[in-house]
Amino acid sequence: MCAVVGVINSKNASTVAYYALFAMQHRGQEASGISVSDGLNIKTHKARGEVGQIFNTQILANLKGEIAIGHNRYSTAGNSSLHDAQPVTATCSLGDISLVHNGNLINKEEVRKELIDNGAIFHSNMDTENVVHLIAKSKKETLKDRFVESLMQSKGAYCFMLASKNKLFVVRDPYGVRPLSLGRLKDGGYIVASETCAFDLIEAEFVRDVKPGEMLIFTQGSDEFESIQIFDQVDPRICAFEYIYFARPDSIIEGKSVYEVRKKMGETLAKKFKEKVDFVVPVPDSGVSAAIGFAQYLKIPLEMAIVRNHYVGRTFIEPTQEMRNLKVKLKLNPMKKVLEDKDIVVIDDSVVRGTTSKKIIALLKQAGARKIHLAIACPEIKFPDIYGIDTPTFEELISANKNIEEVREYTGADSLIFLDIDELVSSIGNERKYSLISFNGDYFIQ
Amino acid sequence: MCAVVGVINSKNASTVAYYALFAMQHRGQEASGISVSDGLNIKTHKARGEVGQIFNTQILANLKGEIAIGHNRYSTAGNSSLHDAQPVTATCSLGDISLVHNGNLINKEEVRKELIDNGAIFHSNMDTENVVHLIAKSKKETLKDRFVESLMQSKGAYCFMLASKNKLFVVRDPYGVRPLSLGRLKDGGYIVASETCAFDLIEAEFVRDVKPGEMLIFTQGSDEFESIQIFDQVDPRICAFEYIYFARPDSIIEGKSVYEVRKKMGETLAKKFKEKVDFVVPVPDSGVSAAIGFAQYLKIPLEMAIVRNHYVGRTFIEPTQEMRNLKVKLKLNPMKKVLEDKDIVVIDDSVVRGTTSKKIIALLKQAGARKIHLAIACPEIKFPDIYGIDTPTFEELISANKNIEEVREYTGADSLIFLDIDELVSSIGNERKYSLISFNGDYFIQ
Amino acid sequence: MCAVVGVINSKNASTVAYYALFAMQHRGQEASGISVSDGLNIKTHKARGEVGQIFNTQILANLKGEIAIGHNRYSTAGNSSLHDAQPVTATCSLGDISLVHNGNLINKEEVRKELIDNGAIFHSNMDTENVVHLIAKSKKETLKDRFVESLMQSKGAYCFMLASKNKLFVVRDPYGVRPLSLGRLKDGGYIVASETCAFDLIEAEFVRDVKPGEMLIFTQGSDEFESIQIFDQVDPRICAFEYIYFARPDSIIEGKSVYEVRKKMGETLAKKFKEKVDFVVPVPDSGVSAAIGFAQYLKIPLEMAIVRNHYVGRTFIEPTQEMRNLKVKLKLNPMKKVLEDKDIVVIDDSVVRGTTSKKIIALLKQAGARKIHLAIACPEIKFPDIYGIDTPTFEELISANKNIEEVREYTGADSLIFLDIDELVSSIGNERKYSLISFNGDYFIQ
Amino acid sequence: MCAVVGVINSKNASTVAYYALFAMQHRGQEASGISVSDGLNIKTHKARGEVGQIFNTQILANLKGEIAIGHNRYSTAGNSSLHDAQPVTATCSLGDISLVHNGNLINKEEVRKELIDNGAIFHSNMDTENVVHLIAKSKKETLKDRFVESLMQSKGAYCFMLASKNKLFVVRDPYGVRPLSLGRLKDGGYIVASETCAFDLIEAEFVRDVKPGEMLIFTQGSDEFESIQIFDQVDPRICAFEYIYFARPDSIIEGKSVYEVRKKMGETLAKKFKEKVDFVVPVPDSGVSAAIGFAQYLKIPLEMAIVRNHYVGRTFIEPTQEMRNLKVKLKLNPMKKVLEDKDIVVIDDSVVRGTTSKKIIALLKQAGARKIHLAIACPEIKFPDIYGIDTPTFEELISANKNIEEVREYTGADSLIFLDIDELVSSIGNERKYSLISFNGDYFIQ
Repeated sequence: MCAVVGVINSKNASTVAYYALFAMQHRGQEASGISVSDGLNIKTHKARGEVGQIFNTQILANLKGEIAIGHNRYSTAGNSSLHDAQPVTATCSLGDISLVHNGNLINKEEVRKELIDNGAIFHSNMDTENVVHLIAKSKKETLKDRFVESLMQSKGAYCFMLASKNKLFVVRDPYGVRPLSLGRLKDGGYIVASETCAFDLIEAEFVRDVKPGEMLIFTQGSDEFESIQIFDQVDPRICAFEYIYFARPDSIIEGKSVYEVRKKMGETLAKKFKEKVDFVVPVPDSGVSAAIGFAQYLKIPLEMAIVRNHYVGRTFIEPTQEMRNLKVKLKLNPMKKVLEDKDIVVIDDSVVRGTTSKKIIALLKQAGARKIHLAIACPEIKFPDIYGIDTPTFEELISANKNIEEVREYTGADSLIFLDIDELVSSIGNERKYSLISFNGDYFIQ
Repeated sequence: MCAVVGVINSKNASTVAYYALFAMQHRGQEASGISVSDGLNIKTHKARGEVGQIFNTQILANLKGEIAIGHNRYSTAGNSSLHDAQPVTATCSLGDISLVHNGNLINKEEVRKELIDNGAIFHSNMDTENVVHLIAKSKKETLKDRFVESLMQSKGAYCFMLASKNKLFVVRDPYGVRPLSLGRLKDGGYIVASETCAFDLIEAEFVRDVKPGEMLIFTQGSDEFESIQIFDQVDPRICAFEYIYFARPDSIIEGKSVYEVRKKMGETLAKKFKEKVDFVVPVPDSGVSAAIGFAQYLKIPLEMAIVRNHYVGRTFIEPTQEMRNLKVKLKLNPMKKVLEDKDIVVIDDSVVRGTTSKKIIALLKQAGARKIHLAIACPEIKFPDIYGIDTPTFEELISANKNIEEVREYTGADSLIFLDIDELVSSIGNERKYSLISFNGDYFIQ
Repeated sequence: MCAVVGVINSKNASTVAYYALFAMQHRGQEASGISVSDGLNIKTHKARGEVGQIFNTQILANLKGEIAIGHNRYSTAGNSSLHDAQPVTATCSLGDISLVHNGNLINKEEVRKELIDNGAIFHSNMDTENVVHLIAKSKKETLKDRFVESLMQSKGAYCFMLASKNKLFVVRDPYGVRPLSLGRLKDGGYIVASETCAFDLIEAEFVRDVKPGEMLIFTQGSDEFESIQIFDQVDPRICAFEYIYFARPDSIIEGKSVYEVRKKMGETLAKKFKEKVDFVVPVPDSGVSAAIGFAQYLKIPLEMAIVRNHYVGRTFIEPTQEMRNLKVKLKLNPMKKVLEDKDIVVIDDSVVRGTTSKKIIALLKQAGARKIHLAIACPEIKFPDIYGIDTPTFEELISANKNIEEVREYTGADSLIFLDIDELVSSIGNERKYSLISFNGDYFIQ
Repeated sequence: MCAVVGVINSKNASTVAYYALFAMQHRGQEASGISVSDGLNIKTHKARGEVGQIFNTQILANLKGEIAIGHNRYSTAGNSSLHDAQPVTATCSLGDISLVHNGNLINKEEVRKELIDNGAIFHSNMDTENVVHLIAKSKKETLKDRFVESLMQSKGAYCFMLASKNKLFVVRDPYGVRPLSLGRLKDGGYIVASETCAFDLIEAEFVRDVKPGEMLIFTQGSDEFESIQIFDQVDPRICAFEYIYFARPDSIIEGKSVYEVRKKMGETLAKKFKEKVDFVVPVPDSGVSAAIGFAQYLKIPLEMAIVRNHYVGRTFIEPTQEMRNLKVKLKLNPMKKVLEDKDIVVIDDSVVRGTTSKKIIALLKQAGARKIHLAIACPEIKFPDIYGIDTPTFEELISANKNIEEVREYTGADSLIFLDIDELVSSIGNERKYSLISFNGDYFIQ
């Protein structure tokens, strides 16, 4: 996941970036950072933790300038450290530069090895740093040419933003796997961000999505910006998981409301649901939108019979073994009074390892529910994603190893349905292709 | 608000208290603390912040013992400091004691003045400290008699828990304004907590509510506990606000599911709602339960058309004046795609100053909603509460100064309905009296 | 030990107190604190650590007012905590008060017990808190009468300073065991401090010593101050250890230069030293002054053949057992090139347990010194001091258990001399009595 | 200045390095760090502050391995940051490396520019980082060849230590400007350190000095080490300032005791001192050794009439202008009782800007001294040093702009003598050349 934002021609570019990162906190809580250019030099502040903890008024006041880029990092591995926070900065022969990146470069290791063999010194494990080194080593004369040259050597699904003393470069990979939208600030500046919910917060006007393979080049002080296509054209494939669970429901991706797509998924599920139930129960918060679509289609009540504790964050003390289920219960508490002797259908957004579903079903049974049907608003996840999503290995993915009936048995549900791939695609809208790797194993970037 | 918990006869009493406080975090995020008795001495750890940040495995490991009391503090005033965190401890002539308190003593200032005039040295502004001094100064021989004597001098709405080296005393005020329930732990110990949601998390079994005016006395190592009525009997009056918005929806207060009471409030509202709307929109999270009841009764769709950002906590940078509405928007974002050209009814749990409702209506209009009706699942708040709820003064309470039509006009809604007091009472259940001060000004504790 | 300072009628009273505490840091590095009265209320800042780390410009700027008292705490026990930092403050019926104390109350436990039996709640283990409670509980009308009454119940060797909103009270115990001097600031204010080296730093003029049993009462805005004798007159007995090693050499105590007294001690030692040596070696820094007197008298060279590492503070990692001697060596390093094949006399200020002397002798031998004579500029320490000095128990004091020859053998020195008690007294000056408990066991305060 | 240490073949290499850095804390208090190789990877811990604050038992326990290098940083410029702490580490194509450096590269800026033009990304302002980049970029096959190649491109006065997974390289510049000594640990390992005082502390045996232009190569597990001369031979020139004030008096540099050299300087000064004085007063601690030599030669008493407050560290609050002299007084306090009406000679180690001498003379006069003669145990400093010492510019150096009489007048002394250059050289010993840049402007490295 991760979130990126770029701002130019705004007096308080770093403050705008801060609020945009705040709105996109759901895309990454591991670390955050903002770089700002004051026209001469680039200053950066980054740290581990959530946006609200990392920045304060004084820190933002020190980040003065009209160009800013920012990043929220999603924890993809246990061994991440401060060194793995973005933006990544460097002083190269063309001056200060700063880079942020959302996605994954599949040829990361080869490029890194070659760079190290040629004397580059790395300070992180991030593929982002590859690109900074490629820019620094490039012999091209302009930063634009250097950046393009570097991207030619970097395969993967990504959005990059590069700030220099007076320019902001924004680029989306040829397939457009990760979302990226352009907006206009009230004060005339531009903002580019992973999700449109960032625009709502700061009352920026949505202009258009950045196109797959498109590079936008903004210059400080200029209202015009340059757009170039730097790759051969290919069929775009936005990642279906953005609709399924990455994005905030109030974001609009490629013209589609995430909330409405999710409701449609729930509706599609409902069409093939054959059981008789007293009511629909979403797993909060991820299953709520689909459950609303599901309940509306079948005209059966929706009950918030599982309560979520929103204070559960990164830090709580691991329960001992005697307190089994506690880890899920800290977050989700089913209501006995509501569930007792009821037949229900539970709506969730996906089944990955199956362990959470199993625990939820167990808690619901313990709370007295009679029949518990499980309806999942996405297809079976059978393949690891290597383009930037932190999915587990084949061995860990329950649907890579068990058929639906076996998964049902494992979870303890009385029945279990998934969306199939066509239903997923038609719920989003058939008019274009999607990245469906996790469902069909089509690794289209090689 | 605030939350209190007491645990006895459990090997890891402090860990049980920790999880109970975690489950009751919604009742106070200002500060937390736990005291534990190891049979000889009492150790305490308390700090400002949320439970998950204050405690870690090592700190809990240092809090060894079979008796624990804990507290979450709700910020009732801007000038609170670490000194105002609970538990409050002392070494008196009977040994170490520790006290926690949920509520408000209305004769706090007189008692405090008299204590100071007699040489008591205070270290906080809390009324809790009054009681600790009264106990320390009492000439009674037993801690029980001292505690009872101290409570006789303390008027108000409260729950107190007092730990000594080998005893746990729990008491609820004569009117039973604040909730307090008794549970049984799996390992045979007892737990007493403000809300039953604390029992669910640690799989404690609900035993019964503590009665108004009842003192329970537990002794370490003994399965028996003593129950005494220390006050003349009066009509109990549990605070209606517990049902309206204090408690977690999954708690059971005096035998009633908070979630179901809230749904009933929504249903009662719906019965008198006369407008035609496309769908129902809750203000999340406080309005969701009532909105479900409302929508189910009228058989109209419920849409989560306002998205809440749960990362908004205590710490974010105050927006500048140019970014008006941002403070509400950081938390609540209406979805244009869903709302455009729709007639809607918005369900919220209360109107206090009216400013938030006004901003929400404005945001919804900006998002394109056509007609916006506002339905409030509680009566007009016309009086300040002085028994422990942090309500504003007369001047600030919009319904103390404006009639419904004027409030409607102020908020910008197209229509506005409240529950009336009788409807509120019947939604909870008519069988008993409630504390309704905020609605009718009946200050029954003098 | 500990250091106290009081300042009145100075615009930046807290800053003056800060520098005075800085100059008296040698009297205590465990914790420091300053209270300041702005004419209405008293504010306090205290923390563990050294003065330079605890205060900064902003903290001092927040401590505005013309009356300040301050304290450096000497670590007398391992279990001290922040609660044991001074000043100790309270709001009593006469308003805010703050107290600092240098010394030890021998009836601490009885008074504390009686206070607790009467309902007082203690927050520290300090005897200072006794006096605060006695003041708070007193029924006398004025603070002066209350303070005097409290002192009547407090036996021991001490200096107290009490600040109220507009007064500063300063008192020295009837025997004057601890030093206390009055000075005049350049801006007309007064300063009272444990040692005169504090005056030098801030260019205050020495006025006179506070008399044993004298209470000085200063009032804000008034140039006059009141002096009263609150105790029956007794023979004063200043603590001889102030001259031996507590005080800074540049302080003047009761009219005598500490440096010159120490030189005189060295000279007195030299008179009875019979061995032939190549040069004199002081143990730095405590033995330097005496060594200078010793060498000057005998007209033999002084060599700084042991180098002290002044970076050794509270925090360094305890060496493992293989690295024996390292703890002493971290602080003291003998120079082989200088010592090799030399006969020397080592001058130190005292022998307490004997372990350090033993290690130093061993290091000197290892460095190649041939004959090593040890001359100690104080008498044998045979009795624990209970009036405020942190001396070990009988069992630990080597001279309480061994005669001089046995001590010599234990340390490994080739010869060993001490000052005898008369020589000590005559080195300081015979004209008055001294507290010589550690040498003669005369516990004169009962 | 700065201090470096390297350890190999010792089980607790990082702990040995820690104590060595502790012993050499006087060479730099700005920042410290240690790298350790466990045979595979290199781990590093570094931070701003003093050694004792930066490391603790747990941190050292995490730095496991038999090879360690460490560094104390001297604050040479106000803008230093954590990035400017050493060691500097990198993962290059030959694996992890770590480098520390004491000294100054005079061609730093040219090399750095060329490296950046070729794509190197810098993370600090240190010349040390140049060498790391040169090693990383080198095409040579072995680390030894790469390191040698890098040194060929680096002109200056330095000691470098380079650790790889299984080797330790140590090198001293061709002129041997900075000291570097080899020692043998008790457990058979080797230690190389800037000063021999580090050996004393950990009871390592001095083996020999590293020769100018010599590279020593140690391999983990091997008792043998390789020695190569990597530069054409030139006349060595150890920096005279090491003897004058950098080194600890208990260190032995090139066979000479620093303490004895300083005493000799004092003696040489004394030979040409013609005034009549009552006694000699050193400016502590820097002037003490010379003062002892001075006093012994003239057979006049030495008095420690200026007391130094060793608690003065980095952190104290800057005095306001009314408190003039306070900054010097915080550190140095002259004793009126000793100085009054006396004629004295003050011994200090150098005069740089003249401001401190001026303040000391003023304080001594204020304390009542009659005649004050000043004798400086080094020649007039007339030239800035650019080889690693933080001396001021021409404009700031008082002796670059004033003759002796004018300096005397400026300081207020009654007479003033310096050592001349020949006297300095003969005090150290005439047998070899020294770096005397500050005195004669002979910038011998070009």
